[in-house]
Parts: sequence; C-alpha cells; structure tokens
Amino acid sequence: MEAEYACILSVGNEILIGKILNSNAQWIAQKLTLLGFTVRSIVTTRDDVLETAEAFKQAIRSKSRIIISTGGLGPTFDDKTAESLARALNLPLVLSEEAYKMILEKYRRASMNMTPEREKMAYIPLGAKPIYNPVGTAPGIYLKYRGSHIFVLPGPPKEMTAMFESEVLPILRKIAPKVFWGEFLLQVKGIPEADFAPTVKDAMKRFKKIYVKSHPRGKETGLSVIEVHVTSSGKNKGEILDELWGAFSFLTKSVKEMGGILEVKKEPTVYKL
Amino acid sequence: MEAEYACILSVGNEILIGKILNSNAQWIAQKLTLLGFTVRSIVTTRDDVLETAEAFKQAIRSKSRIIISTGGLGPTFDDKTAESLARALNLPLVLSEEAYKMILEKYRRASMNMTPEREKMAYIPLGAKPIYNPVGTAPGIYLKYRGSHIFVLPGPPKEMTAMFESEVLPILRKIAPKVFWGEFLLQVKGIPEADFAPTVKDAMKRFKKIYVKSHPRGKETGLSVIEVHVTSSGKNKGEILDELWGAFSFLTKSVKEMGGILEVKKEPTVYKL
Repeated sequence: MEAEYACILSVGNEILIGKILNSNAQWIAQKLTLLGFTVRSIVTTRDDVLETAEAFKQAIRSKSRIIISTGGLGPTFDDKTAESLARALNLPLVLSEEAYKMILEKYRRASMNMTPEREKMAYIPLGAKPIYNPVGTAPGIYLKYRGSHIFVLPGPPKEMTAMFESEVLPILRKIAPKVFWGEFLLQVKGIPEADFAPTVKDAMKRFKKIYVKSHPRGKETGLSVIEVHVTSSGKNKGEILDELWGAFSFLTKSVKEMGGILEVKKEPTVYKL
Repeated sequence: MEAEYACILSVGNEILIGKILNSNAQWIAQKLTLLGFTVRSIVTTRDDVLETAEAFKQAIRSKSRIIISTGGLGPTFDDKTAESLARALNLPLVLSEEAYKMILEKYRRASMNMTPEREKMAYIPLGAKPIYNPVGTAPGIYLKYRGSHIFVLPGPPKEMTAMFESEVLPILRKIAPKVFWGEFLLQVKGIPEADFAPTVKDAMKRFKKIYVKSHPRGKETGLSVIEVHVTSSGKNKGEILDELWGAFSFLTKSVKEMGGILEVKKEPTVYKL
C-alpha cells in the first residue's frame, strides 16, 4: 500500500455529455494535493451501476489510500452510486438507521413526508457510515475497506464542499502526509529578475522544505518589481515555521546586500490544512 | 462492437493537482455527443507511461469506437503520450517522416534548429498517421486499431480545438451516428407556461425526432413570455428539415389557436456537425 495515492471518481451523465465542467474534481484534487496525497487518476463514469462499480474496483485495486466520489446520491432512479459501491465491494445495501433519521429530520423540517424515493437515500453498504449533509438532503457515505478510505459525496458543489470541510477533512487530517501549510510574501524592487534568480535557487538549496516562486510584476518608475512567494508544507508545524523564518532571513538579507528595496507583504504564517 | 461508444483520456499532472480545470474534456464531450456518440468515460492520468498505457488499453477493451486523448505530446521528458499509446498496443515507436517534416518546417519558419527533444515529437506508433498542428509544433496521432479510431491531440486548448476541427471532425463525420443538427426558436407571449406545457408534450409525441425546451422568460407588461427552442439531429438532412418544419407549423398554429402572440426568432435551419 502506497500511503499517498488518491483517486477521484465523478459520477454523472451531465459531465459526459459536456453539459457541465467537472469543477468538483478540480476542487477535491487541490485539497488532496495540499494534504500531500498524490492524485493518480480522475475517472468520470455514467449513471450506470456496472460501470461505476468497475471504477470503484479499479481505484481499490490500484491501492488508493483515499477514494472520493461525487454525484449520484439523490432520490431519483438514476442516482446509483451507493448501489455501485456496494456491488464493487460485494456488500449488501442496508437501511442505515442513522441515515434514515438524518433524512427524516430534513423533510420533517420542510413539512414533507418520507417517500420510498427519499427512503432510498438511507441505504448504504453494510458496515459503512452515513455522512451528514448540512446543505441538502442526501447523506454521504464513509467506508474503510482494506487500506482504503472511501468517501461518497453528492454532486451539487455546495453540498459536496460543505461535507468535505466538516466531515471528510477531519478524517483526512489524521492520515494525511501533510497537515500544515505556510507562506510568506515579499516584494523586491530595483533588482532585475535575472540577477535575483541565483538567490532564489540558493534559498531553495539551503532550505529544503520550502518552495519559492518569483513573479515579475513589471516596472515601476524605472525599477523592476518582483513578487517572491515562499511556501512550505508538512506534518510538523514548528519545522515549517523554522524553514520559513530561515528562508525569510536569508532572502531579506540578500535583498539588502544587493541594494534592493524590500517590502514585506506577508510575514511567515502557518495554517492548518 | 457497440458502434456508438466513445472514451476521452486526459493526460497531465496539472489536472490531477487541481491546477487547471479539464475544459478540453468538456469541449470534446460536447462535440462527440452532438455527433451521436455516447461518451462512456473521461479518464485523467498522470504523465506516466504505465498508467496512461493502462487507460488506453481499458478504453480499447471497453469497445470504444472513438478514443480521443489530449496532453503529453510536447518535446519535454514528461510528454509521454505517444510512448504510452505504443506500449498499450504493443507497437514500436518509429520516426514518422511525415511528422518529422511537419516539425522541421515549423522550426525552420521560426529560424530554429531541430534538436533531439524536438525530433522526439516525430516518433509515433508503427502504422499511425501524424495529424497536422496548425497552431503549435507537436503533431497529433491518428491510428485505427481493430474497431477503434484513436486520436491523440496536444493539451493546449487552441491547438487541440484547431486540430479537432480541421483533421478529426472530417473523419468522425464519416462514422458518426449523427451528421446534421437543426433548430428553430420561437417566442410566445400571453400563454402561461403551465397552459403551454401540454402543447409541447403533444409536439414531441407527433414529431419523434425533435426535442423541445421551453424557458419562461418572466413577464412583460402583464404577459407571460416563453422561449421555445426546438432541436433535432440525425444522419439525414432532409428528414431533420421535415421534422423541424412539421413541428414549426404545429407549434405556430397552436399558439395562434390559444390566442398567444408569436414571434419567430429563428426559422428552422440545419447545420452540418
């Protein structure tokens, strides 16, 4: 099991007919990448049980530590992702009491009755847990299967992102290769980019865990303007801060020695992912 | 072989880290859908020969009549799509004289020399044909393999769409389930949408090959405004025109009978896809 691999599945005909852009996959790919996972594939399948089950199977076979699907969790007949996952794992679909209560409560608040279509959303593979949906009605599904953590989320972006932030992220943080992310931002005036490039290279050599991006921002009253964005990420907050402050001192000192004008746009700051 | 299936492959780490949205896949999916193909899957893989070769293999195994890939055709070491396709089909990569000339000519015009990196773009699987790139330098690849038509296109959208329009589309038109697409557009004032809905339903029942979409456009000086968009597609231009004009007469007559105010925004028109 390569601990760092992830796979994203997108279920839905509307993507395959080109009606919508797969922005969910991009959003999730960004999050997983920040957390240090390597997204190996994004696979979009139709609302078809066999084809979607095959995609789940393959994600498991390819030893993905994280598998996240979006779409196909609603009450209509063409919402088949729960069934597809059950089939992929050869597990029965069972009524989850917890999911049933979540759904009942949603409709009760809207003064609407439970129907067979709505009840369908409470069926999840045996052993799975429902994920609460704070925005819509369809619960998500969380299942640990062998070494894989499988998250099944709905397709509407507002529901998906809310559930990801509130329910998926806390689980991912515990197993992610990276937990913290930090940055600082400098503006350097009066040093041409080509002259500053060796300093950037030198900084990355001295501080192995940082990444430096310098953007030329044109010229201002004859002076060249460069924006220097330095980032770092990892599991250990103190280590990231040390690296960032080290690079910060080195770069600010170098700018002064080269006769440049320095403006600190943002001091080293570390965030929890 | 199901004649109508298609599969889209997107190759590139930049999609998997969430840096860019996969707009190429959406664009191609729309085109293929219009032409009557059923896009069964969109698969994004890394710049990795084994993983991309596996995706090609699977597209062939799943009996896709059309396989279109984008990305990974440039001169750099991480452009590996030609190699991936060759490996998937167990074919050697060979220098295509035709591709070599295309590339040479591009660089000659820019007063640049051929280098090993640039020459690399002329290597394509044995038996394949290069596709001329009118915008950039990297040729595409076209290969018929068993029942599948495989098109390998570059990732930059301007290059991809230009090559699709000029080189891929003429081949697809010959094998596509649909070749023509037609439409007309009406504006109906003074009939509430709910009252007009049975007429729309009736039109679709009478004219089996049309599709009607009605959009309420709000109210204007107390009158309800509906836009009625009717489309049809198929292999036979005359048949589509007949269907569209039949529906046009039926709908315009119905509007008058119901006392609505009709404006023809666009008469029935048929386009070649």
